[in-house]
Amino acid sequence: MRVYNFSAGPSMLPLPVLEKVQAQFLSYDGTGMSVTEMSHRSKPYEAINAEAESLLRELMNIPAGYDVIFVQGGASTQFEAVPLNLVKNKKADYVVTGIFAEKAFKEAGKFTDAAIAASSKEQGFTEIPALKKDMFRADADYAHICYNNTIVGTRYRGAPDTGALPLVADMSSMILSEEVDVSKFGVIYAGAQKNVAPAGVTIVIVKKGLADDPSPACPTMMRWATQIKEHSLFNTPPAFSTYMAMEVFRWLKGMGGVKAIQKINEEKAGMLYDFIDNSAFYTNKVKKESRSIMNVPFVSPSEELDAKFVAEASKEGLLTLKGHRLVGGMRASIYNAMPVEGIKKLIGFMKKFEKENK
Amino acid sequence: MRVYNFSAGPSMLPLPVLEKVQAQFLSYDGTGMSVTEMSHRSKPYEAINAEAESLLRELMNIPAGYDVIFVQGGASTQFEAVPLNLVKNKKADYVVTGIFAEKAFKEAGKFTDAAIAASSKEQGFTEIPALKKDMFRADADYAHICYNNTIVGTRYRGAPDTGALPLVADMSSMILSEEVDVSKFGVIYAGAQKNVAPAGVTIVIVKKGLADDPSPACPTMMRWATQIKEHSLFNTPPAFSTYMAMEVFRWLKGMGGVKAIQKINEEKAGMLYDFIDNSAFYTNKVKKESRSIMNVPFVSPSEELDAKFVAEASKEGLLTLKGHRLVGGMRASIYNAMPVEGIKKLIGFMKKFEKENK
Repeated sequence: MRVYNFSAGPSMLPLPVLEKVQAQFLSYDGTGMSVTEMSHRSKPYEAINAEAESLLRELMNIPAGYDVIFVQGGASTQFEAVPLNLVKNKKADYVVTGIFAEKAFKEAGKFTDAAIAASSKEQGFTEIPALKKDMFRADADYAHICYNNTIVGTRYRGAPDTGALPLVADMSSMILSEEVDVSKFGVIYAGAQKNVAPAGVTIVIVKKGLADDPSPACPTMMRWATQIKEHSLFNTPPAFSTYMAMEVFRWLKGMGGVKAIQKINEEKAGMLYDFIDNSAFYTNKVKKESRSIMNVPFVSPSEELDAKFVAEASKEGLLTLKGHRLVGGMRASIYNAMPVEGIKKLIGFMKKFEKENK
Repeated sequence: MRVYNFSAGPSMLPLPVLEKVQAQFLSYDGTGMSVTEMSHRSKPYEAINAEAESLLRELMNIPAGYDVIFVQGGASTQFEAVPLNLVKNKKADYVVTGIFAEKAFKEAGKFTDAAIAASSKEQGFTEIPALKKDMFRADADYAHICYNNTIVGTRYRGAPDTGALPLVADMSSMILSEEVDVSKFGVIYAGAQKNVAPAGVTIVIVKKGLADDPSPACPTMMRWATQIKEHSLFNTPPAFSTYMAMEVFRWLKGMGGVKAIQKINEEKAGMLYDFIDNSAFYTNKVKKESRSIMNVPFVSPSEELDAKFVAEASKEGLLTLKGHRLVGGMRASIYNAMPVEGIKKLIGFMKKFEKENK
């Protein structure tokens, strides 16, 4: 029996995609071999690689003036690749809205003069700070944001104004969950393991020209230009993850694309926030206009009840609801693949638990 | 229908492993979720990660004084990670026995004074040069070899004597195919996509102490110490590849371990080399004592016949036999998962083709 998995990532994948991949696991598309065994220089894999890119371009409406690559190492590798590929004046400005945004800032500090343009740390990361372009240094090489913050559950609403600075965004936890105007960004990167595919592949979208002059300190394997030139096939790629990304992109297109899934995601998150806000038992302390539609943290009246909640929910097939260790409580991560039924079942359980424990 | 896939990598995986993974693709071991969806901080995944390491230690008889990690980025990333983690005196000596050995040498040259201790380039890489310890600089930080060379098809027989220098070996194309005395090596690394798992995970085995003092230029994500400390879970790992590695390790243990598979591999390669050597039609030009038991390149009397061979073999379900573009001809890569039946079928086809075309 399949469970509802509320993990912050890796997380649920669409069941129709899993079933399709399972059916073709011993022989993909009549080739007589599994994608897990397939040479990345073979025609069938080159077709997968090309379709993954073209579907992502279509789904995100990525302008022609941008390159798209699939690389290894996760967003953590991009925390270092960003400064190593972009720094020229040796200055970079960061907005710190959570633990991962802060990690990105700290890693950048090893390779450039990284400064904090704005932060919501004093507010316990419960909001996205209001940003104005004069908060950024005019001679910085770029401005960096983390678009959705998984731990406390916040998100931006559209690209902030960073003036002439290229805007770099970590979109790991919200890519393809809502419409984004890519033309407002210089670089977008995202680990796959939330809305895209199994962990192991990372998407990098780079405005042409920005990656032309990496730092001499940048290893070959971290240079975006290396993979741009070879269409992500400079070395053996994480082929199975890219293939599953392609299947997820096909599924998403079939669902009506990003606009359609955004509507569903807003409904799913809305149901959960409405229930929490109308409850005297559960609390979410994020500022309303900053609330994430992907990660919904909440607490019950006590830590003991939080622990009991997580344990009992697990028995009902509602898994991985424990909040991040830094904030405690519960967290429901409800990415694209979480069905509406999962939200309804969670709310049903929350009602029952409240009744039994208030 | 499954084919025999002679790709140099990614390459065949054991059919019983593929079937087991397929059966559990929607729900692993009663968890109600696919490993592709599983949090790397969950108990089931931590068990996978731990078992993968312990089985690899058992299969390779890795001494306790070595750390074992599973990382991303392939051997190409390790070409740079090796100098970035090891250089202190800023000197490193390389043995160049093929294209990938040469790539490793060139990448190292960006971060250290890399020198060629020996090379078989003038011999077209058709042999492993005889090595003596006085070929290496006594004050170098390490000596680097590529243990099996896929393109021309050569291999070492045991660890060469590099005196006091830590010996670093790229074992991507032969790990777990034959017994190796790990205690003779400082560092062993291997991309998974030949004998271990789908592409996306890379094994690094490091003698304790060697990774303690990486270069300040080494990015956090390339530091072996980063992942050693966190048991390969510093950031989201390529979980599905590591899981399949664990299943391949279980399969290999069930087959009788490395000693047993080595015997089969020697028989498989022996059948093919014997047939080629006794043929006036096919040629392998590698020096006999340097011949690889994983990659067997050969040519027919002409390039036209080579092309015809590859095309006709493909129709018989013998796939990816085209040689590397740098050497042409054919190449049969016959890793652990290639059954003896695949070799017999290939030899049968070679006989038929010779008869029809000589």
